[in-house]
Amino acid sequence: MESAMQGPTQTPTRSAAYTPTDRTVPTRSADRAAYDKDLVHAILDEAYVCHLGFVRDGAPVVLPTLYARVGERLYVHGSTGSRPLREAGQADPGLPVCLTVTHVDGLVLARSAFHHSINYRSVVVHGVAHDVTDPEEKRQALDALVDHVVPGRSADSRPANKKELAATAVIRLDLDEVSAKLRTGGANDEPEDLALPHWAGVVPLRKGYDAPVANPDLAPGTELPDYLRAR
Amino acid sequence: MESAMQGPTQTPTRSAAYTPTDRTVPTRSADRAAYDKDLVHAILDEAYVCHLGFVRDGAPVVLPTLYARVGERLYVHGSTGSRPLREAGQADPGLPVCLTVTHVDGLVLARSAFHHSINYRSVVVHGVAHDVTDPEEKRQALDALVDHVVPGRSADSRPANKKELAATAVIRLDLDEVSAKLRTGGANDEPEDLALPHWAGVVPLRKGYDAPVANPDLAPGTELPDYLRAR
Repeated sequence: MESAMQGPTQTPTRSAAYTPTDRTVPTRSADRAAYDKDLVHAILDEAYVCHLGFVRDGAPVVLPTLYARVGERLYVHGSTGSRPLREAGQADPGLPVCLTVTHVDGLVLARSAFHHSINYRSVVVHGVAHDVTDPEEKRQALDALVDHVVPGRSADSRPANKKELAATAVIRLDLDEVSAKLRTGGANDEPEDLALPHWAGVVPLRKGYDAPVANPDLAPGTELPDYLRAR
Repeated sequence: MESAMQGPTQTPTRSAAYTPTDRTVPTRSADRAAYDKDLVHAILDEAYVCHLGFVRDGAPVVLPTLYARVGERLYVHGSTGSRPLREAGQADPGLPVCLTVTHVDGLVLARSAFHHSINYRSVVVHGVAHDVTDPEEKRQALDALVDHVVPGRSADSRPANKKELAATAVIRLDLDEVSAKLRTGGANDEPEDLALPHWAGVVPLRKGYDAPVANPDLAPGTELPDYLRAR
């Protein structure tokens, strides 16, 4: 079976780009890597959950978590009692992390087992996460985290109070050592396999939303907001 | 904003279970963790891509990759030239990894910014990955990787030949130190916020497939197989 790291490549339009480093140039399929900032931002902004990796007692830990992008910074939040956030706050000069975001766009069926694959778009960010201590930056980051889930929503909810702010830790990761990787297009079989009778192509994954489900305890007369009707 | 690690918990039906360890009991929201094997298997079998974390030069690396489950073993494959697979083959007694799978099921909008969240199901597997050297186990793992993408598909494609088998590395990770975590249900606001006029509830993410897109170079007369029509 073809590795998800093999197959046709799409070269994005060039805009400002991140500088490749040893860690962001893959050993395999380097032609599939991209450093274009607009492309990286678009992949990051479309997903809801990232996978945050860090090292604890010498072993890797990978946890799913919410995040948001503000310009060239990513923010991750959680309870002040959660281990990675506590460790980022305690570590000096910060906690080394790898933050990865992946979209699965389609299943690629080839005539050969080897060339089966997945169409995907991913971003990998290497860096050091720092505890956000500035109150104004922390407040903006928390708004961004709500707005990342539903754009505009932070203005239509009760802001965090002092107790909630104190219970929430926010860490920042700068977009500096960053790469995107993507596979698009159909199956990429060997020439001698093209005449085989097996169907080949792509099954796209459908992305979308089902109708919103209101909490049963809504205040009387509360209407579904327009920003949710549009979905 | 509420961390994705907070909120109501669903306790699964008890069947055989993994034994909790220091690494698989979370410091926060421990009531949301689950060790039920059937639940863990279902979460693993439904996703296409995992996030595989390992340590390189003391820093974490998290990469998206295809995987498959066979009983109590997970398999990940890739080019023999790819770094993590090479390192798993070279490392003795194997490569410490953390393999995480996450489904995002819905966006949770609360009256308070703090209680916004995500409904999700995730599995985190800690362990040591080993290179699969037994030819029969490797062949079964590669079939499982194809069948994980589309069940039954490995029987309807050309099997890997010797050259392809030699170019493909497979690593195995036993399901031993494993936990699931999930959030379900609606918004979980503070009692004093229930009368606020903000809409609260869940926007479910739609899961499904769009119509298959055939490769333009299909052999004449190749029909869409029944196992793709059923989707």
